[in-house]
Amino acid sequence: MMFPFTAIVGQEDIKTALILNVIDPGIGGLLVMGEKGTAKSTAVRALADLLPEMPVVRDCRFHCAPDGPFCSGCAARRAGGELPVGALKMRVVELPLGITQDRLLGTLDLEHALARGEKRFEAGLLADAHRNFLYVDEVNLLEDHLIDLLLDSAAMGVNTVEREGISYSHPARFILVGTMNPEEGDLRPQLLDRFGLCVRVVTLHEKAQRIEILRRRAAFDAAPDRFRATWHAEQEGLAQRILAARERLPAVAIPDATLEAIVAVASALKLDGHRPDIVILKAARALAAYRGLPAPGTAEIRAAALLALPHRQKRLPFEALATDRSVLERVLQEALPCA
Amino acid sequence: MMFPFTAIVGQEDIKTALILNVIDPGIGGLLVMGEKGTAKSTAVRALADLLPEMPVVRDCRFHCAPDGPFCSGCAARRAGGELPVGALKMRVVELPLGITQDRLLGTLDLEHALARGEKRFEAGLLADAHRNFLYVDEVNLLEDHLIDLLLDSAAMGVNTVEREGISYSHPARFILVGTMNPEEGDLRPQLLDRFGLCVRVVTLHEKAQRIEILRRRAAFDAAPDRFRATWHAEQEGLAQRILAARERLPAVAIPDATLEAIVAVASALKLDGHRPDIVILKAARALAAYRGLPAPGTAEIRAAALLALPHRQKRLPFEALATDRSVLERVLQEALPCA
Amino acid sequence: MMFPFTAIVGQEDIKTALILNVIDPGIGGLLVMGEKGTAKSTAVRALADLLPEMPVVRDCRFHCAPDGPFCSGCAARRAGGELPVGALKMRVVELPLGITQDRLLGTLDLEHALARGEKRFEAGLLADAHRNFLYVDEVNLLEDHLIDLLLDSAAMGVNTVEREGISYSHPARFILVGTMNPEEGDLRPQLLDRFGLCVRVVTLHEKAQRIEILRRRAAFDAAPDRFRATWHAEQEGLAQRILAARERLPAVAIPDATLEAIVAVASALKLDGHRPDIVILKAARALAAYRGLPAPGTAEIRAAALLALPHRQKRLPFEALATDRSVLERVLQEALPCA
Amino acid sequence: MMFPFTAIVGQEDIKTALILNVIDPGIGGLLVMGEKGTAKSTAVRALADLLPEMPVVRDCRFHCAPDGPFCSGCAARRAGGELPVGALKMRVVELPLGITQDRLLGTLDLEHALARGEKRFEAGLLADAHRNFLYVDEVNLLEDHLIDLLLDSAAMGVNTVEREGISYSHPARFILVGTMNPEEGDLRPQLLDRFGLCVRVVTLHEKAQRIEILRRRAAFDAAPDRFRATWHAEQEGLAQRILAARERLPAVAIPDATLEAIVAVASALKLDGHRPDIVILKAARALAAYRGLPAPGTAEIRAAALLALPHRQKRLPFEALATDRSVLERVLQEALPCA
Amino acid sequence: MMFPFTAIVGQEDIKTALILNVIDPGIGGLLVMGEKGTAKSTAVRALADLLPEMPVVRDCRFHCAPDGPFCSGCAARRAGGELPVGALKMRVVELPLGITQDRLLGTLDLEHALARGEKRFEAGLLADAHRNFLYVDEVNLLEDHLIDLLLDSAAMGVNTVEREGISYSHPARFILVGTMNPEEGDLRPQLLDRFGLCVRVVTLHEKAQRIEILRRRAAFDAAPDRFRATWHAEQEGLAQRILAARERLPAVAIPDATLEAIVAVASALKLDGHRPDIVILKAARALAAYRGLPAPGTAEIRAAALLALPHRQKRLPFEALATDRSVLERVLQEALPCA
Amino acid sequence: MMFPFTAIVGQEDIKTALILNVIDPGIGGLLVMGEKGTAKSTAVRALADLLPEMPVVRDCRFHCAPDGPFCSGCAARRAGGELPVGALKMRVVELPLGITQDRLLGTLDLEHALARGEKRFEAGLLADAHRNFLYVDEVNLLEDHLIDLLLDSAAMGVNTVEREGISYSHPARFILVGTMNPEEGDLRPQLLDRFGLCVRVVTLHEKAQRIEILRRRAAFDAAPDRFRATWHAEQEGLAQRILAARERLPAVAIPDATLEAIVAVASALKLDGHRPDIVILKAARALAAYRGLPAPGTAEIRAAALLALPHRQKRLPFEALATDRSVLERVLQEALPCA
Repeated sequence: MMFPFTAIVGQEDIKTALILNVIDPGIGGLLVMGEKGTAKSTAVRALADLLPEMPVVRDCRFHCAPDGPFCSGCAARRAGGELPVGALKMRVVELPLGITQDRLLGTLDLEHALARGEKRFEAGLLADAHRNFLYVDEVNLLEDHLIDLLLDSAAMGVNTVEREGISYSHPARFILVGTMNPEEGDLRPQLLDRFGLCVRVVTLHEKAQRIEILRRRAAFDAAPDRFRATWHAEQEGLAQRILAARERLPAVAIPDATLEAIVAVASALKLDGHRPDIVILKAARALAAYRGLPAPGTAEIRAAALLALPHRQKRLPFEALATDRSVLERVLQEALPCA
Repeated sequence: MMFPFTAIVGQEDIKTALILNVIDPGIGGLLVMGEKGTAKSTAVRALADLLPEMPVVRDCRFHCAPDGPFCSGCAARRAGGELPVGALKMRVVELPLGITQDRLLGTLDLEHALARGEKRFEAGLLADAHRNFLYVDEVNLLEDHLIDLLLDSAAMGVNTVEREGISYSHPARFILVGTMNPEEGDLRPQLLDRFGLCVRVVTLHEKAQRIEILRRRAAFDAAPDRFRATWHAEQEGLAQRILAARERLPAVAIPDATLEAIVAVASALKLDGHRPDIVILKAARALAAYRGLPAPGTAEIRAAALLALPHRQKRLPFEALATDRSVLERVLQEALPCA
Repeated sequence: MMFPFTAIVGQEDIKTALILNVIDPGIGGLLVMGEKGTAKSTAVRALADLLPEMPVVRDCRFHCAPDGPFCSGCAARRAGGELPVGALKMRVVELPLGITQDRLLGTLDLEHALARGEKRFEAGLLADAHRNFLYVDEVNLLEDHLIDLLLDSAAMGVNTVEREGISYSHPARFILVGTMNPEEGDLRPQLLDRFGLCVRVVTLHEKAQRIEILRRRAAFDAAPDRFRATWHAEQEGLAQRILAARERLPAVAIPDATLEAIVAVASALKLDGHRPDIVILKAARALAAYRGLPAPGTAEIRAAALLALPHRQKRLPFEALATDRSVLERVLQEALPCA
Repeated sequence: MMFPFTAIVGQEDIKTALILNVIDPGIGGLLVMGEKGTAKSTAVRALADLLPEMPVVRDCRFHCAPDGPFCSGCAARRAGGELPVGALKMRVVELPLGITQDRLLGTLDLEHALARGEKRFEAGLLADAHRNFLYVDEVNLLEDHLIDLLLDSAAMGVNTVEREGISYSHPARFILVGTMNPEEGDLRPQLLDRFGLCVRVVTLHEKAQRIEILRRRAAFDAAPDRFRATWHAEQEGLAQRILAARERLPAVAIPDATLEAIVAVASALKLDGHRPDIVILKAARALAAYRGLPAPGTAEIRAAALLALPHRQKRLPFEALATDRSVLERVLQEALPCA
Repeated sequence: MMFPFTAIVGQEDIKTALILNVIDPGIGGLLVMGEKGTAKSTAVRALADLLPEMPVVRDCRFHCAPDGPFCSGCAARRAGGELPVGALKMRVVELPLGITQDRLLGTLDLEHALARGEKRFEAGLLADAHRNFLYVDEVNLLEDHLIDLLLDSAAMGVNTVEREGISYSHPARFILVGTMNPEEGDLRPQLLDRFGLCVRVVTLHEKAQRIEILRRRAAFDAAPDRFRATWHAEQEGLAQRILAARERLPAVAIPDATLEAIVAVASALKLDGHRPDIVILKAARALAAYRGLPAPGTAEIRAAALLALPHRQKRLPFEALATDRSVLERVLQEALPCA
Repeated sequence: MMFPFTAIVGQEDIKTALILNVIDPGIGGLLVMGEKGTAKSTAVRALADLLPEMPVVRDCRFHCAPDGPFCSGCAARRAGGELPVGALKMRVVELPLGITQDRLLGTLDLEHALARGEKRFEAGLLADAHRNFLYVDEVNLLEDHLIDLLLDSAAMGVNTVEREGISYSHPARFILVGTMNPEEGDLRPQLLDRFGLCVRVVTLHEKAQRIEILRRRAAFDAAPDRFRATWHAEQEGLAQRILAARERLPAVAIPDATLEAIVAVASALKLDGHRPDIVILKAARALAAYRGLPAPGTAEIRAAALLALPHRQKRLPFEALATDRSVLERVLQEALPCA
C-alpha cells in the first residue's frame, strides 16, 4: 500500500520533476540524487497513484499506442483493418538490481522458432515499461552492461532481442527514473547526460517539518487505509491537474524569444552539445502547461533550467554536481533577470 | 542443544535489542558488532527458546498471517471462503555464508511450468524466514549480490523469483539479525542504515563474571540437559513477559512530546534522512510495552536512541561507530536531560 | 524517422568525410571524435537517405557485386551461367555495443552440417554490412576481441567462420564508421591507423546557429513528416551530386605532381608507414570527382590531408590528436602553399 | 607404511598437543606451524597408529556414536528399536589441497531424488571425518571458501548439503589438525582462533639429535617392517596410556581454584572473547588425565596455557605469534608462579 | 589478389630473410619488427607466389614427406607397400589472432572414437601448416597459451591432441613467421630466441622511393591483373633462383674456418646458449647456396649474423633490440674484418 | 631421433645428477636451472637411451613392480596366485605445459561406473610415469594447481582420482626432473625443497668446446643415423656402468662417520628441516656405487652436498641460489677438508 504522493512533506523539486515527465514523456526522465533515507523511493513509487490512463491497442502485449509505433503483431493486425482501442493506466515499473539480461530484454524461445518456423518471444521488463515509467533504485550500482542495454533501448525507442541469427523487436519508449546516493559511486558523464532532468533531495532539518514527517509516517504505519482516505481528495485533485496539463501541452506556443532565452542560458554555461537546449525547452513548455499559461515565461525557463542543467555542468567534481547551484544561479540571474 | 538465553552472563544490550525486535518486528532487525568469541552467536541462537507462537494460515508453505499479506495459494483459498487458522512458534532461521542464490530465494521448476502450464516453486530460505528471525553470522563476509538480494526483499516485503519470463512471488517479511567482527571488514553505509538497531558486544574483563562464564560453560558442556533444567523457570518467565509486551504494544500511546523529543535528538546529531526518527520511536514504544508503561518516557527514548543511532553517526571512522558513544551521550544529555 | 542530412546545421567536416567515403569506399572509413550531444550519430544515421543504389547479384544473401568477389553460392551459380543482376540501395548497418561474436560473424549450424553433409550458415551482421556502411557508436567502448574481429575482416575483405574444423567464408567489404567521445577512453594507435579519415565534431557556440538548431529540432520533433517534406529537394539534389561523383571517379587523373605533393606533405610530418600517402591520394581524387574537377588540385590535397592525417600524428597526446591542427596546418602551408 | 610416532626424535610439544586432542576431542584441534622439512606431517600421520577404538552404530555410513547425535538413517532405525553397536578405530582423514566442494561435503543425486522421491546422498570427506581427525597439510594454502565450509561445519557439528531446495544433513564433528609454513602466508585471526591449540615445530640443531634422526630415517627407509618391529612395544605402551586417560577424563575434577587461575592468566593477556579460558580448562583437564592426576595443578594449567594461547595473542605480528613466548612466559610467571 | 613480391620497393632484409627460410626450412623462421603500415604483411603474404612445389604422399591430409616423418595413416599404408608420391606447392598459412585452441590443433571426435573404436581427427591449422610457412600477424598480441602451444609443437615437430585419455599425433614442422609492432608490447626473451632470424622493417623516407611506392600501389589498386602481368617475368626469375638454391644446398661445404669464424662472432657477443651459432651456420649456408658459392665466405657469415643475432643480444632494452646494430656491427668488424 | 647422451660436450653436473637418480630413484629427482639454449632438454631427453630395464608385472597398465606396491588390478590377481613377471625399459615421460588435470591424473568414466557398477579408469600421464622419469620443461611456468597435484602425488606415491564420491587409486612413484630458466620466474621455496638435487647449466665460453658443439650438432643434423652409430659403443658402456651401480647400491655401507660428516655440513649451513641430510646421504651412496666404492668417502659426500644443497640455502636471492657456491664451498672446506 502506497504512501500518498501529496502527503510527502516538502521535497517540491522531485515532485515537480516527476509531474513534468508525466506531462511530456519526451523530456527524458529524471535522476534523483540524495542521501539514504530521504524518501527518494517513496516519492517515485507514490507517483503511480497519480498516473493517467492512456489509449492502447487492445490485447497487445506491448500496449502499443493506437497511432504507433507498432509491434509486429499490431502491424499485422493493422494491415487487416482498424485496430481496436482500449485504455490502460500508466505504471511505474520497477527494475530490481539483480535483474538478468534475459528478464530485462525478454528472450526468444529458439527451439520453438526453429521447430515451427514462428518466433515465440517471452517479453521482458522493457515490454512492461513501454510508455510507462521505468524506475531503477540505486542506478549507480546497476551493472555496466545492463545500463548500456537500457540506454541503448532508450536511445532507439526499440528493444531488439537476437539469438543465433533470429531476432525480435518491439517498441520500448519509457521514462527512465533513477535514484542514487552520490556517496556510493558516481555515473559516467555520458550516462548523466541521458537523464533529462536531475534533482537533489536532502534531509529536512526544520523541526516542525520533521515532526510532521514522523507523525504522518507513524499514522500511516498504524493504519494505512485510514491515512490514505484522509488524503484522497488532495490526490484526486493533483491527478486531474496533471491530466489537464497533458491535454493542454500541444497548444503551448514556442515564441522566438523563448528560443533565444534558452540559448542564452546554455551558452553562458559552455555546456557540451545541444541536448541541454532541447530539454530546457521541453520542460519549460510542460511547466507552462501545468501552470495553464499560453507559452513559457522567464519563470518557467528559469525553473526548467534549474532542473535540466545541474548534472550537465562541466569541471565540477561529481559530488558537487547537484549541490552547488551557485554558478547556475548566477548565470540565470544574468541571462534571465527575474521579472 | 541451546545454551539458555537467561544464563548468558552480562551482555544486556544485545539481550534487550533482540527482545525489542520480538515485541515489534517493525523495528527492523539488529546488527551485532563484536570481537571473536564474545557469544554473539550464542545469544542470537538462544533467543529461539523464548519466541512466542504466532497465528498462521494452516497448511500454508509460507505460514502467511491470517490477515495477510497472502501468498498466491492463500489468496486463492481465501477467495473460496474463510482461511483455516493454526499457530506456529517463531523461529531463528540461519543463513549459511556459502548459500546459493537459488537456495536463498527458491527456484522455479521451469520444465514443469512449461509442460503443465502450472508454476511449481521450490521454496528457499526466504520462505522459511517469513515472519521469523533471519540470522546471518559474519554478515560483512556475505557476498555483495546476496546482501543486495536480502535487502531488496527486506525493503519490499516480497520475494520474487523469475526465470525466463515466468515469475513467482510470496510475502517475505523477516527480522534480519547480523553479527560481524569489525576487524574483518566493514559494511557500506547504505547497508548499515538498513539495520534498525545496533549493539556492540565486548569481552568481559571483570574476573568474577569471567569465572562465572567459565563455570556455566563447563557445567553446560558436561551435562547440557541438567543445566537447562536449572534455568527452566527463568526462561519461562522471560518468554511470558515478552508475550505480554507484544499484546500490550498497540495500546502504548505516542504523545506529541515524544515526537518532539525524538526529533530533538536526531536533529542534534545531523543524521542523514528520516529513518532514525522512526526507528527510535518504534524502539521506545516497544521498550515502554516491555516495561509495562502507558507511553515512552525520557528513559525509554534515551535507551532507544542508544540502540538506534550508533551505526548512523556520520564522520566517524567505521571501527569507532559502535564503540565511541561520547558524542551520542553528550547529545542525549543535552536534548534529554536525565530525570 | 530520420532527421534530414542537409538540415544539420554546420558540421561540414563530418558531412564531407562521409560523402567522400560514399564516392570511394576504398578510402577506408571514418572516425568521428566529439563530445556528447554533438549530433555525431545523427549525421551518420542521416547519411542513409542519400545513399545510392548499387548493382547486386539477385537473390544473393550477401548482395555480392556482379563482378565479384563472390560468395560460394554465387560462385557455384556463375559456373552454371550468367548471374542475374538486380539493384539495392546502400545501407548504414548499425553495430550495437553488446553484440555477440556469433551475431557479428554469423554461425555455422553444426548439427545440420554433420547430419546432411551440407553447410548451413546463419549470416551475421558482417553479411549485412558487405558493400555498406558499418556504424559503431562509441567504438572505443567496444570489447577488444570484437574490434580485433572487425579489423581482421576489414583487412582481409572476407569473413570466415569456423567451428570444429568446418568453415564458411563470404566477402565482407564494408566502410567502417566509428564515433567516440575522447573523454571516455582512447584507441590503440594500431586501430586509429585503420580508419581512413578522422574528423572532430564540436559543440557550436555561435548563438544564431544554436537557435537554428533548436528551432529545427523542435520543428522535427513536433511534426517529423512535415519537416522532412520541407527538405526533400535539398536532399534529392545532394544524392544526385554524390551519384554523379561516383560515376566520374575512375576518370579523375593522377598526375605525377599530385603524387609528389602528397609525399611532400606526409614526409614533412614523419608519419609511420605508407598508408597515409595512399589515403590522401584517394580522398583527394574523390573530392575532385565531387567538385567535378579533372584531377585533384592543391586545394583538394590540402583538404584530403586535413581529413586523413589528424589521427596519425605521432608524439601528440591522444586527446590532442584531432584537436590540435597547428602542426598540420603549418606543414601544409609549407608543403602546399595556398594558391 | 608409517614411521612410528614414538620414534620421532624430540618435538614433544606437537606430540603432547596431538595426544591431548585424542583424550578430549572437545579441545578443538591443533595448528602446527613450522618450516619445511620439520616432520610436521610425519607426526600427524604417525598418530594414526595410536588411535583407540570407539563404539559406533553398526552399518552406519557416518559411524554415528551410539548415544548420538544421529544421522537420519540412525534416527529412523532407532525409532524402530535398539541400535546395534560395533567398534571402529579412530582415523586420521587427510584433506588434499585440490579437493572440490562436492568431494568435501558430499553430493545429492538430484535426478534420483526427484524421480523416486527419496534422497540419495553420496557422502564426502566430512562424513569420513566424523569423530575422527581431519588433517589439512598447508592449511594456509587451502582456498578460502573451503576453509569457510570446514569451519562452518566444525562450528555447527553438522554438515548440510543442499541442491535446489533439497537438503541432507549428517553429524560432522571432527578434530581439525592443520599444518602450515608461516613463510608461505598467514591465516585470518578469525581462523586462528578456531584452532584449540597451536604449536611451533623447529629444526633441531643439536648434532646428536640430528645424527639420530638421520640414522632412524635411513634404517626405516632400508627396511620399514624391521624398524617398526623394533618400536612395537613403545607404541603399544603409549596407545594404552592414551586409552586409559580417555576413560579417566570425566572423573578429573574442576576445583574453583583452577577456574580462578585460568581466568587470571587469560585476563592478564587481555585476549579477545572467552574461548581461550575454555580451551585452557579442557587441555589442563586432559593433561591431568594423561598424567593420572585427580585434578589439574598449576603445572597442567601452565602447560595448557602454553599450548592454547600462542596464536591468540594480540598486537604481535603474525610471524612472531608462535615463536615469541616472552610475554606469555612472563604473564604465566606472574599469574601462576612455579611451585 | 597478391601484390607481387618483386614489386615491393626496398626492404631487402625481410626479402632475404624470407628467401633463406624457403631454401633451408631448418633455419627456424623469422620475426619481423616494424611500425604500422610498413608492408610487413604484404611481404610475407607475397612470398606465397614464389614458393616451390614439394613432393608429398598422395591423398595424405597432412601432406607427409615421402621420406617421413609419417602420420599414422601414412605409416599404415607404408607397411602395406610403396607410398604414392605427388607434388604440392608450399603455402603461407595464416593464423588469425582470435583462433581457438581446437581450430589450431584440431579436435578429436570423442563420441565417434568411443562408439566405433576408431579415432576421428578433425585436423586444425597445424595440419595445414606442416611443411609450410605459418604466418602470425601481431604475434605479440597472440594469447600466451596459444604461443606456448605453437612453440611446443614447433620444438617437437609433432602435434598431439588429447581428450580424456585418447590421443592423436601427426607431424607438424612449419616455418614460423611472426610480425609485430614493438610499440604494442614485447615478447618474452624465451620466445624471441625461438625465431631463427629477425629483421626490422622501417618506413622509407627517401622521396623518390615513396613516390614509387605510391605509384605502384595506385596502379595495383586500379588494375591488379594488369599490374601483376607487368611483373610476371621478374617473379618467375626469382622463383627459379630459389628452387635452384634449395637443390644446391646439401652440396654447400662447411669448412672448419667457417665454424671458427661463427664461434668467434657469437663468443664476442657473450650470447646465452649455443643456438645462435647453429642458426648463423644454417643461414650462411643457405645464403651461399642462393649466391651459388661452394661454401659460405666472410660476407655470408656477416650477413647471416646480422639476421640471426639482433633479437638475441643481452642487456639491450626491448625496443632497441632490432634497431641498435652498433654493438653488433663493431663486433662483426673485429671478428670478421671486411675483405 | 635422440642426440647421444655421451656426445654432449661438457656439462658434467647435469649428467652426474641424472645418473645418480637412475641408480637410486629415492634421491628425489632433479631441478636443472639454466639460460635458454644450454642443452638442458637435450640432456634430459638423451638420458632415455641409457635407462635400464626393470622387472614389471606383465599386462599391468601401471607396470607395477613385482614386489609392490600394487594397483587394484594386480592386488586382485595376486590374491588368485603368483603374478606373471616381465621386463620394461625405464622411460622419460614428458609433461607438456598445457596439460589438463584430466590428462595428468586420468579420469573416471562415471557413466560406466554408475551404469554397470564397475569403475573404468582412463589412465593419465602419472600412470605412464610410475617408476619412470617425469620430465617438466620450464617447470616454473607450470600452473600452480598442476604443480600442487604433481607434488601431492610425489609425496604420497599414490595417484587418487575422485569424481562425485567414486575414487580410483594407483601407485605413482616417479623421478621428477624439471628444467627452468631462472630469468623467467622462480619457484616457491616449498617447491624447491621437493627436488632432491639441483644443478646449474651454463653456456660454455671456451672456443674449442663451442666449435666442437657446433661441429657435432651440424654432423647430427646432417645425418643423425650415422652420428649415432659413431657413439654407439660409448653409450653402451655407460648404460652397463649404470646398471652395475644399481645392483651394487644395497651393498654400499653407511658408516657412522658418514652420518656425522653429513650432519656437520648441513648444520654449518643452518638449513631448514632434516630433508637435506637424507638427500646427501642417498646421493653420496649412489655415487659410491657408481664409483665402485664400498662406502661413501669424503669426496662423495662433498660431491653429493654440492648437488643436494644449492637450492636449499637460506637468505640468498633466488637468482643466486644455484650460482653462488661461495658459501657452500667454504662450509664444505671447513667441515670436510679435502683429503
